[in-house]
Amino acid sequence: MTEQLTQPKPATPPRKASPTRLKILQVAASLFADRGFSGVGVNEIGEATGLGRGALYYHISSKEDLLYDITTAYMSDLIADGKAILDSEVDPIIRTQKLSRALMMTISEHLSEMTVCFREIHALTAERRRAVLSLHSDYQAIWSQSLSDGLAKGQFRPIPSTVLKGLLGMYFYSFLWLDPRGPQNAADIGDAFAEVVLRAVRV
Amino acid sequence: MTEQLTQPKPATPPRKASPTRLKILQVAASLFADRGFSGVGVNEIGEATGLGRGALYYHISSKEDLLYDITTAYMSDLIADGKAILDSEVDPIIRTQKLSRALMMTISEHLSEMTVCFREIHALTAERRRAVLSLHSDYQAIWSQSLSDGLAKGQFRPIPSTVLKGLLGMYFYSFLWLDPRGPQNAADIGDAFAEVVLRAVRV
Repeated sequence: MTEQLTQPKPATPPRKASPTRLKILQVAASLFADRGFSGVGVNEIGEATGLGRGALYYHISSKEDLLYDITTAYMSDLIADGKAILDSEVDPIIRTQKLSRALMMTISEHLSEMTVCFREIHALTAERRRAVLSLHSDYQAIWSQSLSDGLAKGQFRPIPSTVLKGLLGMYFYSFLWLDPRGPQNAADIGDAFAEVVLRAVRV
Repeated sequence: MTEQLTQPKPATPPRKASPTRLKILQVAASLFADRGFSGVGVNEIGEATGLGRGALYYHISSKEDLLYDITTAYMSDLIADGKAILDSEVDPIIRTQKLSRALMMTISEHLSEMTVCFREIHALTAERRRAVLSLHSDYQAIWSQSLSDGLAKGQFRPIPSTVLKGLLGMYFYSFLWLDPRGPQNAADIGDAFAEVVLRAVRV
């Protein structure tokens, strides 16, 4: 992942991280989600991972490096999953349901990472911020494509892009209230949100 | 506002601030929105307001004091506006449209403050965080009441609370993409979002 981190390229998924780096990312995401990126020091990440500051710097080049990796990894996964759904499912309604479940389950299963992803973009350098926002646009384009296909098939009505942004915000904002151990699981919430989207877009 | 800030009481709007304090709040909100609460020092707020650090401390007791004030002021306004709409408008559909416009216009007109409000809750102390989350609950209760009234009148269907949270997230998350100078104004977006809500809840 290191190469792409030092030269951020929009919409390019990072390569597979080593187990140690994955652990560092998980621990850092949890700390950042809990106290905010600026509120967490590299020393704490070193302690929390059990590596110490010195060994930590063997695996990362900076704290912002970690933030960039966290904010791109799962958005890249969402894009890959979304493209696979577009390719494998042609029915606009079932597609919407599959995109909805996949998004809600990713947010639920990686809540710390997604919290950081949606909340700490401003802490990135300008270039990396653009790269992350470009990933967000690529993800939105998948939904947009799916809605356009439904429109072409006469099943969906046209909606303004602000409404699509709003509908995606319905999912994204859930990092603030979602309880992965709550009574309603992520798949059920995904199905309920799919119904909202479908009611919003169906003719 | 100071009394309520040192003893946070959920759902109680802060008292009117002085013009100087209002200016400090605006400047601080803008800085926090741009670089994150932890990334901004009291010295910078003092410089940006033109007061300097010493005079600033005449008006505030701490940086977190400002954050609490920013995160409560507009949520308190939204609650007051929402209650007024509940009291003055009985038609569930028109109510939804009015609540939707009021919310979207408040977010648009106070974008820095709302960004801080939705993004920096984690930077508050536990007690104040609870007070702010309680304000969020009070605001959600207004929409919940409006939907219940529509249900009682046979116009709306019952929806899970997660769907209401999702629908409100559609508005709240807009702090990340909303451009108050963009082609679609906040009132129009509010109307489009009201249609999404009404399509989601109408029988």
